[in-house]
Amino acid sequence: MTTYFRTHQEEILNDFKKFLSFKSISADKSLKDELLATADWLKNYLENIGFECELWPTKTYPTLFAHYSKKKDKKTILIYNHYDVQPVDPLSKWDSDPFDAQIKDGLIFARGAQDNKGQCFYVITALKAYLKTFGELPVNVKLCIEGDEEIGSEGLKEVAPFKQDELKADDLWVVDLGILNEDKPAITLGTRGLTALEVTLNTTDHDLHSGEHGGIVLNPIVELCHLLAKLHDEESNRVMVPQFYDHIEELSDEELKALDLHLDEKEYEKNFGAKPIGGEIQYQPLERAWLRPTLEINGIKGGYIGEGVKTVIPQSASAKITCRLVKGQNPYYIQAYISEFLQKEVKKGVKLHIQILNPGSFAMRTKPQSNSAKVVANSFSEIFGKKCSFIMAGGTIGIVEILSQSAQAEVLFFGLGLPTDNIHAPNEHFSIERLEKGAAIIATALDMS
Amino acid sequence: MTTYFRTHQEEILNDFKKFLSFKSISADKSLKDELLATADWLKNYLENIGFECELWPTKTYPTLFAHYSKKKDKKTILIYNHYDVQPVDPLSKWDSDPFDAQIKDGLIFARGAQDNKGQCFYVITALKAYLKTFGELPVNVKLCIEGDEEIGSEGLKEVAPFKQDELKADDLWVVDLGILNEDKPAITLGTRGLTALEVTLNTTDHDLHSGEHGGIVLNPIVELCHLLAKLHDEESNRVMVPQFYDHIEELSDEELKALDLHLDEKEYEKNFGAKPIGGEIQYQPLERAWLRPTLEINGIKGGYIGEGVKTVIPQSASAKITCRLVKGQNPYYIQAYISEFLQKEVKKGVKLHIQILNPGSFAMRTKPQSNSAKVVANSFSEIFGKKCSFIMAGGTIGIVEILSQSAQAEVLFFGLGLPTDNIHAPNEHFSIERLEKGAAIIATALDMS
Repeated sequence: MTTYFRTHQEEILNDFKKFLSFKSISADKSLKDELLATADWLKNYLENIGFECELWPTKTYPTLFAHYSKKKDKKTILIYNHYDVQPVDPLSKWDSDPFDAQIKDGLIFARGAQDNKGQCFYVITALKAYLKTFGELPVNVKLCIEGDEEIGSEGLKEVAPFKQDELKADDLWVVDLGILNEDKPAITLGTRGLTALEVTLNTTDHDLHSGEHGGIVLNPIVELCHLLAKLHDEESNRVMVPQFYDHIEELSDEELKALDLHLDEKEYEKNFGAKPIGGEIQYQPLERAWLRPTLEINGIKGGYIGEGVKTVIPQSASAKITCRLVKGQNPYYIQAYISEFLQKEVKKGVKLHIQILNPGSFAMRTKPQSNSAKVVANSFSEIFGKKCSFIMAGGTIGIVEILSQSAQAEVLFFGLGLPTDNIHAPNEHFSIERLEKGAAIIATALDMS
Repeated sequence: MTTYFRTHQEEILNDFKKFLSFKSISADKSLKDELLATADWLKNYLENIGFECELWPTKTYPTLFAHYSKKKDKKTILIYNHYDVQPVDPLSKWDSDPFDAQIKDGLIFARGAQDNKGQCFYVITALKAYLKTFGELPVNVKLCIEGDEEIGSEGLKEVAPFKQDELKADDLWVVDLGILNEDKPAITLGTRGLTALEVTLNTTDHDLHSGEHGGIVLNPIVELCHLLAKLHDEESNRVMVPQFYDHIEELSDEELKALDLHLDEKEYEKNFGAKPIGGEIQYQPLERAWLRPTLEINGIKGGYIGEGVKTVIPQSASAKITCRLVKGQNPYYIQAYISEFLQKEVKKGVKLHIQILNPGSFAMRTKPQSNSAKVVANSFSEIFGKKCSFIMAGGTIGIVEILSQSAQAEVLFFGLGLPTDNIHAPNEHFSIERLEKGAAIIATALDMS
C-alpha cells in the first residue's frame, strides 16, 4: 500500500483535489447541482475501479451505493462515508478558497479535506490500490456514501429501510471519526446524538425607530437575551430545562475505566485558542464532551448588524440551538422539554415561534470487544506501530442507528480525523500522511477480516 | 403657495424623486460618491433659485451651506435639514426599490421620503415658490443641510465652531420633527439625546465544532445572552446599570401639564403592530418615549445565521446598543457607566471588547413661549385651521446643541413627520399633501417673522 501510494501520489492528490472542488454544501439548497455533480463524479470513479454503482434518490440528495460482491464465501464489509460538507462562512477567515484545495507543508486545506471527503477518499484509494495491485479484494465490500449527513441524513434515513438487501453486511465501518493526536491510534466507542431548533421572537409587525418607539414597545432582542439566558445556570453552566438530564444512562465503572479521559489542558488551549472552562463544572473536560449532553446556541441574529449604527427596534430576533445528547436521551423528548420551557418563560406580549431544524439523532455506544473492533484495532496498531486505545466522540453521525439496523451489521466507528483539523470551521485541513495511513489501515483491515 | 404648488406639482414631484434617487446612506462608507453627488445636486438646485452656496468639507460628508442675505434690516432665519439617510435593510421587506420613489394614493415611498429629504424639500420648495412669485424673500434665510446626521453628525460638529459668522442667525428652525396625527398641528419642545456602543465577546480564537468542543469551551453567544440580560430588570424593564438614572432633570409640574401626553393605545397598536407594553412600567407610554431614557439592543449577531443548521461554537458574538437620554444625562458618563457594568459582570475567561460607535448627543429642551415658537405655531394653526399644541420627541438630532451655540440663535423644533411614516424602516413614506402643507407653513412663517 505504501509503495502504491508513493508511486501514485501525484495522481491520488489530483483526484482528491477534484473531489474537494465540488461545492457540496447540503445546508444550502441553491447548491443542489453541485451535490448531484459530486455524486456523479464518485459513481464514475468507483465504476472505473471495478465497483457496481447505484444512485439512490432521496428527498434531499442521492446516496451513492457501490458494491464489489465477487467473494461468495467471504465476509461483507459495509463502509459508510458522506460526500456533503458544512457551509464555509465566515469566508473571510479562510486563508485560501475553501473549494480550491491548497497543499502546504504536507497539509491539504479545503472544506471537506477531512470531514468527510478526506476520510472517504482514503477508503476509495485503498480499494483502488488493492484492486490495481492484486486484481481482486480479499472480502466483499459495499460502500454507502450519502449526501446529507451535515443536515441530519433525513434523505438516507427514509431510504435505508427499503434497501435492506443491498445494505446487508457482517460489519459496518463508519469512517467519519478520529484520533486525539497523531501518535495515538484509537477507536471510538460511542457518539453523541443531536437535536436542533430555531427560536424566533416577535414584538412588532415591522421594524420601528428606537427614538420614537423606544420605551413604548418591547424590544425582541432584549427579550431573546432574557429568554436564552434562562437556559443555563450561570454559575454551574448546567442546562436549566426541566427533565433535560432525566434519562441519561451512565457508563458502568468498568466502561468508564476503559476510556482514556486524559486531556492536556495547556495543549488544548494552544490548539484551539480556548480554555477548557465551559460546560458543567463538576465534570472533567472529556467527560463533558463525550458523556454529558450540551445545549449550545450556534447562531443568533436580530436588528441591524452592518457597519455603524442603526437606531432600530427590530421586528424579530432569532437563535439557532443544538443539543448534543448522550445514551438514554430521546431527541424528541428533549425538543418537547425545551419548547415547553421556552413557552412558559417567554414574556407576555411577545410572540414565540419554535421551528424544529433537525428532528433528532440518538447517541450510539458500541462494544469494545467485537470481532470487527479487534480487527480494526489491530490494523491501527500495525500501521501506527503502537497499541490502539479506546475513546469516544462528542459529535454525531445521525444515520448510523438506522443504517446498522438496515444492514443488520455490527457497527464500528473510526477514522483519522484530528481535533485540530478545523472541521466545520475556516481553514479545515487533512494531511497527506494521514491519507496514506488511512488507506493502509483500510487495506490491512480488509486483509484481516 | 397653494396655487404655486398645484400649478407646478409635476415639476416639484419630479425634482423630489431625483433628490430621493441618491443612495445617500451615511452609515455605508462605500456609498461616499452618492453622498457627494447629493450635495452637488442640492447646491446646483439652490443656486438656480437664487441662493449663494458653499460646500463645507468635513471628516465625513460635506455640509451644504446656502444663504439669501439681501434684506439688511430684517431678521435672519437659519433652517437645518440633512440629506443623508438611514440604511435600507431588510431590503426584502420593501414593496418597491427604496431609491426609485413610487407614488401610490398620494403617498411617496422611498428611503428618506420623510426623514429628512421630504422635510428638506418642502423648505426648498417654499423658498423657490416665494422667490418665483414675489422676486424676493421677506427675511434673510440661511440653510444648513448636513450629510451625516444619521451617523451622529460628527463631521458638522467639528466644523460648526469655525463657521460662527456664516451660521449667525436670530432663529434656528430644525425641520426634522413631526406631529402625532394628520389633524393635530404641533410643535416639539424637546428631543432625547443618544449614545451608541458595540459589545463583542470572544471565548476562542476561531470557530469550533460543537460536537468535539461542546461542553469543553464557553460559548460566546450563551455568555452574551447572560451579560445582556443583566442590563434590564425583567419585571420592571428598568435599566440595571448603576447611576444610569442618577442625573435626570425632571420637568416641572407646569411644563408637564403643558404637554399633550395622551396616547390612544388601540390606535397605536393598529398603526405599529405592537402593544405599548415596553419600557418602565410605572410611567405612561408617552412619558416613557419623551421623558425617560432607554437602553435598546439594536442589533445582535453571532455564529451561523444562514439557512439550516451549522453545529458551530463561534469565535465571537456581538451586539449594538444605543441609549436615548433625557435632560441631565451626560452621554459620556452613560457610556462609562455601561462599560464599567459590563466589565464587572462578564464571566471570567471571556474576552470583552467595547467600541464606542457614537460619542453622544445631549437631550435638548426648548422654551414654549419664544418669539420663534409663537410665529411657527401661528403658522401651523393657520395652515391646519386648528390650534397648535406642544409635544416632545423621543428621537435625537445630535447636531442641534452645537449648531444653536454657533449660530447664537434660539432653537425651534418642528416638522410634518407622522409616527406612521416608517422612518428608519422598510416602506418609508411621506404624502404629497404634507409636502404642500410644509411649503405653506414655511412660507407663512417667513412672512410672519
